[in-house]
Amino acid sequence: MREVSAVNEFGQTVTVFIPAERALTVYVDKRELVTLMTLGAHPELLVLGFLRNQRLVASVDEVEGISVDWEVGAAAVKTRLGIPDIEARTAKRVVTTGCGQGSVFGDLMAEVDNWVLPPATLTQAQLYRIVNTIRLRDSTYKLSGSVHGCGLFCGDELQLFIEDVGRHNALDTLAGWMWMQDQRGGCGSDKVCYTTGRLTSEMVIKSAQMGVPIVVSRSGITQMGLDIAKKLDVCAIGRATNRRFKCFSGAHRLLLQPELVGTRPALAPA
Amino acid sequence: MREVSAVNEFGQTVTVFIPAERALTVYVDKRELVTLMTLGAHPELLVLGFLRNQRLVASVDEVEGISVDWEVGAAAVKTRLGIPDIEARTAKRVVTTGCGQGSVFGDLMAEVDNWVLPPATLTQAQLYRIVNTIRLRDSTYKLSGSVHGCGLFCGDELQLFIEDVGRHNALDTLAGWMWMQDQRGGCGSDKVCYTTGRLTSEMVIKSAQMGVPIVVSRSGITQMGLDIAKKLDVCAIGRATNRRFKCFSGAHRLLLQPELVGTRPALAPA
Repeated sequence: MREVSAVNEFGQTVTVFIPAERALTVYVDKRELVTLMTLGAHPELLVLGFLRNQRLVASVDEVEGISVDWEVGAAAVKTRLGIPDIEARTAKRVVTTGCGQGSVFGDLMAEVDNWVLPPATLTQAQLYRIVNTIRLRDSTYKLSGSVHGCGLFCGDELQLFIEDVGRHNALDTLAGWMWMQDQRGGCGSDKVCYTTGRLTSEMVIKSAQMGVPIVVSRSGITQMGLDIAKKLDVCAIGRATNRRFKCFSGAHRLLLQPELVGTRPALAPA
Repeated sequence: MREVSAVNEFGQTVTVFIPAERALTVYVDKRELVTLMTLGAHPELLVLGFLRNQRLVASVDEVEGISVDWEVGAAAVKTRLGIPDIEARTAKRVVTTGCGQGSVFGDLMAEVDNWVLPPATLTQAQLYRIVNTIRLRDSTYKLSGSVHGCGLFCGDELQLFIEDVGRHNALDTLAGWMWMQDQRGGCGSDKVCYTTGRLTSEMVIKSAQMGVPIVVSRSGITQMGLDIAKKLDVCAIGRATNRRFKCFSGAHRLLLQPELVGTRPALAPA
């Protein structure tokens, strides 16, 4: 975060906090792969999650180490055996709807059919606690209105909250963290992913790839996001603010408690 | 837009409109360049603006034609003389903070130093009319919460409003339209670009590239966006909602009329 001056509607000079993103160029075995713009809270986890979500590495064990040098804005990834066909696998360029990581390397859709997600469910009360936990967070997002946040929950318990200039970076960092946790047992299958960003196809795919069957967003969903959520049986809950929400897919995973919100107000006077 | 069913907080099944994005693969002289996810309102203008903003073509005249076939999701661009070094110029991959068009081909920053923007100004009353015009628009954005909108104004008069799943697509479509208009004279230099998205470095660069010296957003600005706005003398106004805003850069272009908002309320009781 950086403090800058701005002129407001009264003509006054005021102090505003804005997010200070930096460029981080990722080198895999000395080969330049990509440049990420990031707030850089957890650059190693971001790079690890990026490699995983782009499916360039299949297991943490394939990565010998990641070292970040902010002086030169570089992250050097060393793999144990190299990444086979890296040239071909990063050649196809899909410009997506996503914030942050617009390029999806390779054909993410190819394997999707084989994925099976754990049978986790969420109660409406848990959903409200998740939304409230995010609401109460003193976040860069709130302060600047210029970043996206992602939270990983175990049931309604917040495990990790990450903010970045792009929601993909935030989600990739979560993925990197989860991947490291999985090595140590993880939190089980009752995972819920919250994002301030929209539920686009890539966001749903990334969550599913992490084995998270429930995604919650304060924003909406797109058609491709919905199509993939249905295909993967992901519970996709959008427009979640205060006590309102819309469950677009996988509603059987959401245990409704409509008594929590009382009766819907009648449209006409009784 | 597509009508879908969702379950709300009362357990009721309700109808919701969500944006229906489609994949559009761009071929330049039969060579696959990129796949854009788009709502597809003006695909030819989107592709033209994309080519321009990626600086793969320098003049409309270089493009002989663009034909879009939604049956196969393809846009075929035919150039008059080909694009020299297209392979090399599209090789560098920068994953940006932007929604939509995450990849910035080549080094956009290289030429920025030479740009000089027209000396346009905007009054606070005009700014309020711009924000109000956007507010009153019956938009996909409002309906679904899942798309970004961009508007091109001449002073405070709306010329064109475009919505798409990514704010870069929306801005690229504006760029394509402006480029076609420029051929016919255009609206002069008093252009203002409004975006629902954040003012990141790419958004500022794209506006400047279109010769638009004033950008307005309901969202915030990032550090790199601000740095470039200052460098290019772009008037960057963020957090513009109702009568509030923050002018982060180029404040000399904004003619303040603080009398429009009255006196700032005192923080302590008088």
